[in-house]
Amino acid sequence: MASSTAAGPATRPASHEPYERTERTTPSRYRDRTSYDRESVHAILDAGYVCHLGFVRDGAPVVLPTLYGRIGERLYVHGSTGSRPLNAAGQAEDPGMPVCVTVTHLDGIVLARSAFHHSLNYRSVVVHGTARRVTDETELTAALDALVDQVVPGRAADSRPPTAKELAATAVLRIDLAEVSAKVRNAGPGDDPEDLALPHWSGVVPVSTHYGTPIPAEDLAPGIPVPGYLPGR
Amino acid sequence: MASSTAAGPATRPASHEPYERTERTTPSRYRDRTSYDRESVHAILDAGYVCHLGFVRDGAPVVLPTLYGRIGERLYVHGSTGSRPLNAAGQAEDPGMPVCVTVTHLDGIVLARSAFHHSLNYRSVVVHGTARRVTDETELTAALDALVDQVVPGRAADSRPPTAKELAATAVLRIDLAEVSAKVRNAGPGDDPEDLALPHWSGVVPVSTHYGTPIPAEDLAPGIPVPGYLPGR
Repeated sequence: MASSTAAGPATRPASHEPYERTERTTPSRYRDRTSYDRESVHAILDAGYVCHLGFVRDGAPVVLPTLYGRIGERLYVHGSTGSRPLNAAGQAEDPGMPVCVTVTHLDGIVLARSAFHHSLNYRSVVVHGTARRVTDETELTAALDALVDQVVPGRAADSRPPTAKELAATAVLRIDLAEVSAKVRNAGPGDDPEDLALPHWSGVVPVSTHYGTPIPAEDLAPGIPVPGYLPGR
Repeated sequence: MASSTAAGPATRPASHEPYERTERTTPSRYRDRTSYDRESVHAILDAGYVCHLGFVRDGAPVVLPTLYGRIGERLYVHGSTGSRPLNAAGQAEDPGMPVCVTVTHLDGIVLARSAFHHSLNYRSVVVHGTARRVTDETELTAALDALVDQVVPGRAADSRPPTAKELAATAVLRIDLAEVSAKVRNAGPGDDPEDLALPHWSGVVPVSTHYGTPIPAEDLAPGIPVPGYLPGR
């Protein structure tokens, strides 16, 4: 696989193959909206700030919003040493904890003539896997950089790195990206033909994320400019 | 409790009491960010479009984004009769399916001088409960109206109501709002005193939802104006 040259078309490495479809990443509905394409999945993950981490506690599901970051085919989810999911995952690498991590972006409100066909345009990724606590200090440092850069790319290099004490107080879970699917709806309303003449407005209201003007901390030292990498400048 | 008068200060009805705190709605961290106030919970729920529905399937967690709506102390979650969570919940009212429904709004990116104190401002609600399939036609119709009005308030009345066939093809789960908590972070960075003089910019980038100009359906009949209740007009 190392035979490709900069000049010629590269043999696609295995990591560019789509994610393998499994029974639980095969939806029961809207299969045409589902993708296993690695680049699509990465792009949806990289565009988000908050994931919804699901795990099972005493037989019941728990879904918590939390920060995450990605390095290649590994997803890192943030917590603290005091938080429940991370305690459940334990200190040890194995056996880990079954989790489901979902990231969703809302792109539009879809108004159909019929109540029934109202919908949303969205991009989402669902990751099934096993979460394991990151214990290696080098990996932990890299994961924390990824978590910060997920929120503001370039920020990790422009902040005070974690101390040994902070590293010890931070728990990060790793989930390998293996059983993964993306789902995208990006279309107008799907009204039934017999409804097209109804007098109700129909269409899409685009939805996007807006970044306001950055607000400096009250105790920010004078003379520190707003960094060029911030959104909303 | 019915002794209040319109003129005097009303005795607060039971439904205005805070949600009862339980072991699983008591966070292990940041208890000062957690609230059981009913109005705060309702406001956060009412401001969202997508919830993350968690359930357990073959012992593993599953988290799916989906539409929802609220009527009083009942949360309704949308699905279809072919979808897995709704099949798992079954046709019957009981015993239902243990679920966790989480709604999260991102309000700001919090940049601290230290990587460690980077955070997000957010509002979230976590609902633990049992989901039961709505089978009563009156309740189902009301729930579907709530689902449409959750996305665009006032829209249910300005769309073609569901037919009997559509009602039969739509599955809605009901979760009673009983074991519920809200969590809010709305503050600047929490840097350590010894980091305040560091040369890194620190502050908050506000994040909000932006609605673009509504895009009419390609087949929209001429002369139908954009309704006044739409966001982004």
